[in-house]
Amino acid sequence: MATYSFLTRCLRKPTAVFRTSHDACLSHRLFCYAGLISQSSPGVFVLWPMFMRVLNKLGAIVQTKMSSLGAQMLLLPTLGDERIWTKSGRWNDAGQLFKLYDRNGKQYCLQPTHEEEITSLVGSLELSYKDLPLLLYQISNKFRDELRPRYGLIRCREFIMKDMYSFDKCPNSALDTYHSVSDAYSELLSDLRLPYHKVLACAGPIGGHLSHEYHIPSSVGEDILCICQRCGKGYNAELEDGAERIVCTDSSCSHEFQKIRGSEVGHCFLLGRRYSSCFDANYHGLDGKQTLEMGCYGLGLTRLVAVGVEYLSAAAFPDLPNEQISEIRWPQGLAPYRGCVVLQKETAKNAMTAEELNSIFGILADANYDLRFPGDILVDDRPGLSLGRKLVDIRRLGIPWIAILKSSAGSVGPFELIDLHRGRSHAATVHEIRSAFEQPTLFDSSVLPEWDMSNRKATG
Amino acid sequence: MATYSFLTRCLRKPTAVFRTSHDACLSHRLFCYAGLISQSSPGVFVLWPMFMRVLNKLGAIVQTKMSSLGAQMLLLPTLGDERIWTKSGRWNDAGQLFKLYDRNGKQYCLQPTHEEEITSLVGSLELSYKDLPLLLYQISNKFRDELRPRYGLIRCREFIMKDMYSFDKCPNSALDTYHSVSDAYSELLSDLRLPYHKVLACAGPIGGHLSHEYHIPSSVGEDILCICQRCGKGYNAELEDGAERIVCTDSSCSHEFQKIRGSEVGHCFLLGRRYSSCFDANYHGLDGKQTLEMGCYGLGLTRLVAVGVEYLSAAAFPDLPNEQISEIRWPQGLAPYRGCVVLQKETAKNAMTAEELNSIFGILADANYDLRFPGDILVDDRPGLSLGRKLVDIRRLGIPWIAILKSSAGSVGPFELIDLHRGRSHAATVHEIRSAFEQPTLFDSSVLPEWDMSNRKATG
Repeated sequence: MATYSFLTRCLRKPTAVFRTSHDACLSHRLFCYAGLISQSSPGVFVLWPMFMRVLNKLGAIVQTKMSSLGAQMLLLPTLGDERIWTKSGRWNDAGQLFKLYDRNGKQYCLQPTHEEEITSLVGSLELSYKDLPLLLYQISNKFRDELRPRYGLIRCREFIMKDMYSFDKCPNSALDTYHSVSDAYSELLSDLRLPYHKVLACAGPIGGHLSHEYHIPSSVGEDILCICQRCGKGYNAELEDGAERIVCTDSSCSHEFQKIRGSEVGHCFLLGRRYSSCFDANYHGLDGKQTLEMGCYGLGLTRLVAVGVEYLSAAAFPDLPNEQISEIRWPQGLAPYRGCVVLQKETAKNAMTAEELNSIFGILADANYDLRFPGDILVDDRPGLSLGRKLVDIRRLGIPWIAILKSSAGSVGPFELIDLHRGRSHAATVHEIRSAFEQPTLFDSSVLPEWDMSNRKATG
Repeated sequence: MATYSFLTRCLRKPTAVFRTSHDACLSHRLFCYAGLISQSSPGVFVLWPMFMRVLNKLGAIVQTKMSSLGAQMLLLPTLGDERIWTKSGRWNDAGQLFKLYDRNGKQYCLQPTHEEEITSLVGSLELSYKDLPLLLYQISNKFRDELRPRYGLIRCREFIMKDMYSFDKCPNSALDTYHSVSDAYSELLSDLRLPYHKVLACAGPIGGHLSHEYHIPSSVGEDILCICQRCGKGYNAELEDGAERIVCTDSSCSHEFQKIRGSEVGHCFLLGRRYSSCFDANYHGLDGKQTLEMGCYGLGLTRLVAVGVEYLSAAAFPDLPNEQISEIRWPQGLAPYRGCVVLQKETAKNAMTAEELNSIFGILADANYDLRFPGDILVDDRPGLSLGRKLVDIRRLGIPWIAILKSSAGSVGPFELIDLHRGRSHAATVHEIRSAFEQPTLFDSSVLPEWDMSNRKATG
């Protein structure tokens, strides 16, 4: 599979002018600026090819993590039968349901989550206790008739979510599953290098006994979190019941809470028998038929990308006001390309020959790039543009490594390698560039000689 | 990533009794029998984990093929704005649109195809002639309010389709693109080892100048095709205009047409300016603004799997009436697992020890299995079941290679390797099993000694 994507063949039309509106936020502005998404109708977006690369990378990470829990991927329908939603009592309660009729007058909703669908399915299976625990998940479009969609991909009407459902034989085993999945969520967010808060939350209309939300600190977050300043544990302020204050769950702690604003990216619910009893979802136990104990676990994929970019891009430029930040910083491993090769203008004195380029492309391609993501090195081959002009665009995309290829004094290399995350630039051989592209997290840039940005010559 | 899936951990509940109904057909019955899908409401299905493996494999093949054409994947929304559908004139014409209102009274449809959405997007990009041809595609849920959904995944209300749209600068270049994509479709169907007919078709409500459909011969097909018996070219009978007979397009041919029944799996339309003129979708050419020339290209993924299985499973058992066929035959490369290892009952005399199994699993795993599909070897580890009982289930799933692992006369191997497609059984070492699993299409089973099915001993 091809290692390279050529920028001249990529759909990417940055929005030069961004209309400031009530729903503008940093991530939305950056995505539009970089030509990654566009709005179709309020809260409904087109995800462009470069954004799809990001989403597919996140999807692969999530799938690997869910597989490691023994979870299996399936696909539940978008069209939800009114009958099952009425049975669970959520047809009229869940206020944000999109509803529609088919030509025969049968009514459906566009399912925002799938507790009814999955419980009704699993209930029909006549499972044995030996089949448990059973974890089933999907990654699919979800729908919510938001009164006020805003903040781009953060609060949409149509979005992509991973939802998982667990089925256990008893409350203790269900709690074990709940903790395993919660831990996997924590690991996932750590792997993405995102700061997150796991907080006690209100189960809300989905129901259940225990619920935790995963939040990323965000100035546009819609939740207020109370976080213990010593141990980091906390809860969603919506749990506060008037004068009653919820204390830190860790009794050895100072109980000093700080209130911060967060955007929810994941939630875990211990549902108990809320749905399994409605749908008569049982299993054959040693003592006869028993009701299944359930959990459900959501992760908003499009929202996670947006909130992650919102946080990281602001954090990378602490001295700039939001309006002046123009470069994206992606969660670890989610940049649309792992590296970018920028070519000097063909007419420049120090432009490389076609043979030199071919030889370098050959060396770079001979690496262990993840085969699931073909074309993972971007080549900025736009003709007639100066190096400086190209770099502005590539930096804006937030690709972590940028290699500038030009001949120097009649010889090939060393080249300039820009480490976008650390804000440094080095002289590097093509083999060092390959190492950087291959293992972005493990690459030790300290071994490379520093590059002197003022005169663009190697100093080390 | 894990090479093995263990059957005891897979969701798979075969339907023992299948209700015969008007919408029953071979593929639907086989999918239900094998525990691969289930119905949620008429024409709306849950795709179970094993079916998702099939669909993901087909998706990967399609993506690779589309990338090789230079096409880029994006994701267009399901919720289609009434405004753009009215603009193209299809809001009231496309009879099978699901329509709905949001809470603010704004009306949407669930988009069955995306000509309006993509043309409106591309029109906003101010493309240059240098950006053309541009090919954009997605793989996503599509919706059609079928009056009579039937034949399981063959005619659904909610289904998965790949739709691609091409944008060219002139009619000639658009025709070139049309031919490239048509050729890619032909290759794809050949790669899947499916017999197909590419026929001239009526453009229908989507519009356009030229249209070809891809059909697979099918007894439940809803189209009648007229196929030239000599050159294989043909057309959809819906093109016949009363007494006028359409002649074979190849003038050197005998013009002897045979009428056969087919199920459509793909279509190509040369749209011209049908949509680009509605949406003012232009590009900057050398002579100023020009209107884009479009094509669109659909491939029904869930339908392709179903129609493929419908054809191949019947073809594999020509002497059996449809009702008695119980084994699935998948299109090449789409079986949910590339191979299956069946373990002897643990209590059997010739059961293998845990050490022997571990050593064999180690050798099998050390192969070049496609990393995009973890768990691609199934292990039938169900305890307490006889070998014969297990084999019935695994054969029903249609996994192309089945290896039976048991100790023979105190030594390890040779094992029995069943080649399901050729209906043969051989004695094979673990390394030969690995070769078979690794490259199912290239493996030459003729080099293996034949196995004598009557006494299950190697004869060659």
